[in-house]
Amino acid sequence: MIDFLGDWKRTHYCGALTSKDVGREVVLMGWVMRRRDHGGLIFIDLRDREGIAQVVFDPDQSGDSHKKAEALRNEYVVAVKGKVIARPEGTVNPNMKTGEVEVVVSECKLLNRSKPLPFTLDDYVDVAENLRLKHRYLDLRRPALQQNLILRSKVAQVTRQYLTGNGFLELETPFLTKSTPEGARDFLVPSRISNGEFYALPQSPQLFKQILMVSGFDRYFQIVRCFRDEDLRADRQPEFTQIDCEMSYIDREDIITVMEGLIATIFKDAKGVDVALPIPRMTYGEAIRRFGVDNPDLRFGLELVELSDIVKGAGFKVFADVVSGGGIVKGLNAKGCGGMSRKEIDDLTEFAKIYGAKGLAYVKVTAEGWQSPIAKFFTAEEIAAMDKLFAAEEGDLLLFVADKPKVVNDSLGKLRNHLANLLGLLDKDVFNFVWITDFPLLEWDDEDKRWAAVHHPFTAPMDEDLAYVESDPGRCRAKAYDLVLNGNEIGGGSIRIHQEKIQSLMFKMLGLSEEDARSKFGFLLDALEYGTPPHGGIAFGMDRLVMLLTGSDSIRDVIAFPKTQKGACLMSDAPSPVDAKQLRELGLRLAAK
Amino acid sequence: MIDFLGDWKRTHYCGALTSKDVGREVVLMGWVMRRRDHGGLIFIDLRDREGIAQVVFDPDQSGDSHKKAEALRNEYVVAVKGKVIARPEGTVNPNMKTGEVEVVVSECKLLNRSKPLPFTLDDYVDVAENLRLKHRYLDLRRPALQQNLILRSKVAQVTRQYLTGNGFLELETPFLTKSTPEGARDFLVPSRISNGEFYALPQSPQLFKQILMVSGFDRYFQIVRCFRDEDLRADRQPEFTQIDCEMSYIDREDIITVMEGLIATIFKDAKGVDVALPIPRMTYGEAIRRFGVDNPDLRFGLELVELSDIVKGAGFKVFADVVSGGGIVKGLNAKGCGGMSRKEIDDLTEFAKIYGAKGLAYVKVTAEGWQSPIAKFFTAEEIAAMDKLFAAEEGDLLLFVADKPKVVNDSLGKLRNHLANLLGLLDKDVFNFVWITDFPLLEWDDEDKRWAAVHHPFTAPMDEDLAYVESDPGRCRAKAYDLVLNGNEIGGGSIRIHQEKIQSLMFKMLGLSEEDARSKFGFLLDALEYGTPPHGGIAFGMDRLVMLLTGSDSIRDVIAFPKTQKGACLMSDAPSPVDAKQLRELGLRLAAK
Repeated sequence: MIDFLGDWKRTHYCGALTSKDVGREVVLMGWVMRRRDHGGLIFIDLRDREGIAQVVFDPDQSGDSHKKAEALRNEYVVAVKGKVIARPEGTVNPNMKTGEVEVVVSECKLLNRSKPLPFTLDDYVDVAENLRLKHRYLDLRRPALQQNLILRSKVAQVTRQYLTGNGFLELETPFLTKSTPEGARDFLVPSRISNGEFYALPQSPQLFKQILMVSGFDRYFQIVRCFRDEDLRADRQPEFTQIDCEMSYIDREDIITVMEGLIATIFKDAKGVDVALPIPRMTYGEAIRRFGVDNPDLRFGLELVELSDIVKGAGFKVFADVVSGGGIVKGLNAKGCGGMSRKEIDDLTEFAKIYGAKGLAYVKVTAEGWQSPIAKFFTAEEIAAMDKLFAAEEGDLLLFVADKPKVVNDSLGKLRNHLANLLGLLDKDVFNFVWITDFPLLEWDDEDKRWAAVHHPFTAPMDEDLAYVESDPGRCRAKAYDLVLNGNEIGGGSIRIHQEKIQSLMFKMLGLSEEDARSKFGFLLDALEYGTPPHGGIAFGMDRLVMLLTGSDSIRDVIAFPKTQKGACLMSDAPSPVDAKQLRELGLRLAAK
Repeated sequence: MIDFLGDWKRTHYCGALTSKDVGREVVLMGWVMRRRDHGGLIFIDLRDREGIAQVVFDPDQSGDSHKKAEALRNEYVVAVKGKVIARPEGTVNPNMKTGEVEVVVSECKLLNRSKPLPFTLDDYVDVAENLRLKHRYLDLRRPALQQNLILRSKVAQVTRQYLTGNGFLELETPFLTKSTPEGARDFLVPSRISNGEFYALPQSPQLFKQILMVSGFDRYFQIVRCFRDEDLRADRQPEFTQIDCEMSYIDREDIITVMEGLIATIFKDAKGVDVALPIPRMTYGEAIRRFGVDNPDLRFGLELVELSDIVKGAGFKVFADVVSGGGIVKGLNAKGCGGMSRKEIDDLTEFAKIYGAKGLAYVKVTAEGWQSPIAKFFTAEEIAAMDKLFAAEEGDLLLFVADKPKVVNDSLGKLRNHLANLLGLLDKDVFNFVWITDFPLLEWDDEDKRWAAVHHPFTAPMDEDLAYVESDPGRCRAKAYDLVLNGNEIGGGSIRIHQEKIQSLMFKMLGLSEEDARSKFGFLLDALEYGTPPHGGIAFGMDRLVMLLTGSDSIRDVIAFPKTQKGACLMSDAPSPVDAKQLRELGLRLAAK
């Protein structure tokens, strides 16, 4: 028989009991973590959100409850009344928050039973993720996951307090919006009232938050779900959460200052970590030059070295030809990796090839100098010059890629992170921030043969580059900025275009006909003509931020109900087929396979 | 020429200036509300989110800026530097927050121009709503709308502070969920990865919040968007926002106590209104009996009177037959309406017919007694008995409906609200709350010939009615409760079923086959078997709550970007046709019209 809760009220969370409570009558409610019978005494570890308390059923003091306790199994739900006592000498558990006390039960209610679980809740047991996702309601009982979501809730509150304290208004934007397929693919929502027409779920509230600035709300924020129907890479979700902000009458410095304050507050209040302000900055150009990527992980060195000038006149024809063909040669010094086996170096080569490198030249630095198939092509002078750039020492491994700049930077940049991981240089307790600034405004898309926006089409060019948007698009820099934490872009934003003429020019540069621009963004173009203030903003990726804060390996560990890489919810079995009637009402038919 | 913002920083909001700022150098930024030229002096009312400041361009003090000021038009965007001075005697404006001061401009930047607006922003001008919605970015500049959204933001913050202060965690639930067409129609989202399968946008996070209780999060809340694809009545939106809460190890009293605290805090902190606690309660039965509806507006009387016992033996056959056929006769006293014209009474009759009444009998109470076509059918004694129940006095109008109970209560209940409106009894500054409790668990659906859940299928029966769910479903009451404010249901919730057996029985009672129950709610049934604690919750309608708080006439006035009754966003033109490629990727075709 299951007991009704009746008029029982919980007095304490299990995890909240301390020696200060000794002598108190308490009512606890929670799940049976473990039951141990010790010659008459029955011990229960009772778990709730806040922790675990030891509960004792004593045949002399617990009356009928002792009998009930015999039937308890793991994950049964119970409520106990009893007195807090100090644990007898020698039984104190210093590893447990509540380890100095226990509760001697006087009365007990069995609130629900549980079947044996399909997997244990021990944090360290390896369970196939699909099984965990199917039984997400059980997986979420694991204290580690609970703590992740508790911290996530804390981050949300701290964020809102900080932003509202700084004059931001939380304003809600629509989820049923217009499809404007520019960058990523939209999720569509068919309209029943207007058959053949569709809403799109927003990839971000970008246009709406700009409109709110046009309307004069001055400072906006929202912690908001966004949607992208992309083929999911390892750590992406079809729906994800952004901390989305926009400000009026400001420039880049204002936004950076306010947002640095936000980040510092989040890390201090949610995690107890001090972030030194101001956060350092690096231009896009410098990031690419030194680290090959625009989201450099600055927790470690392994910087890229540009060798084109040295090798272009040297005897190694492969390198020289690349440089004379407009390519570059860069390298990095894998410090102390001179002892790597052939197999290990081959693995690095394979890794570099993922990012387009045709090969990876290598040099082992020994007491006798360079040991490498390519050593013979260089003069002692050239080798000395390169050694100097690499700061090479005996025992180092030098790695080279020669190719088009994009391939060289991509492959070496990624290889740099890969090596750091192999070498154990990634300390999860270090939080290294950097702002990346001065992004290019446009980049040439070789496939589509057109200019594409590096950030998005609403990003303003630098004032001093405005004159060149049409005549020399490649030289224009954008008023864009990303915040990078430990090699992860956790936020990105820009000052927006606030003049209709510049916005129209931008659409033109992107190859949008006037007609297309009007049909997709007409309301923005109109709005820009009715007194739009200068404005800009930023959006932070909440999932990734919390992942880094909690030291989790996957964003799935900081999302209550994540989806698989196929976009499925294994618990509720979404997506799934629907009734023919539903499709009929939407004026849709399934295409034949 | 448009000026760059450069290094200018706003020092004050326009609306924040007071006489304390006299003598200060300030920088203001905002929109030109009005320009007046007074013999050389140019006055600008400059508007931002916080209010309006008077800005003066003086040819002697403002230099080149004076020339710029001549070109300013309404809604131009400007930044001004200047000194705050006290307004000259006789020009103080006591109706304006900043009416004691003005700013004498020394420097001015023109940040953007504006075309003439399609409508003025004066709050009192009547503009067609469709035009306002098309130019929502302009409509949102109206101070009244801005204040609505500012208050809405405040309500959100107060709500979160209160709930997190009470141990609630803000946990995010998915938007791409499984379609389980029970009550209202789902919005569907086709899956590209799994062609032919669909997600549904959630009508509420109901199942997910219950799962979070199964997982042990104990107290959950979320301010969350929900979706219903229904034919929109006047004041519904396809997407709407709920304050959604769930608690474990509690009963109804715990939830009511915590949530009364929330409501009182919102009204106090956001509106300065004291809500007397505890909020009164009324059973569903009493509400229907006295007011005909389960969301009674208690700001006024006009209570319904049950007359069946008196009329069943009386000479008016129409009434007597209804009662003997299982119907009822009720009436209400339209206090002081005895002077209504035939036309006015006909209008009331037409109104009652909307809700199914076949007619409306009426009696004018005069000094000579009843004046009515039906008076002759009743004895003096019967009339006296009815007069007593009605507390009838000379000049009153008595209205009667005889029909099935549902029709009588519906039509008279709605007529009661209608009359109160006509009679000016609806004071927007009075906030009258009542909890409605003891709802029926199930009601017989005459159309579908099956029992339907009055609340939803997850609502628990009263403990004492549990034994009758199968044998006598009609007598079972639910552990459900609604919070009603001035005749609007602003919140509804229940204690949930936490045992698999009872949940399965409930599905059976609703006519769901075991197979259907498993395919739709299998994960819930599974979860209930793994140690689910007693739990319950509530959801408040944020839009309606803010509408009532702000005294707005429509929820569209408290939503930044509302949709029309056809579900369209007139600003962005959603929904709209999409590319054939998008449909192809989703494996969909439009059905022939």
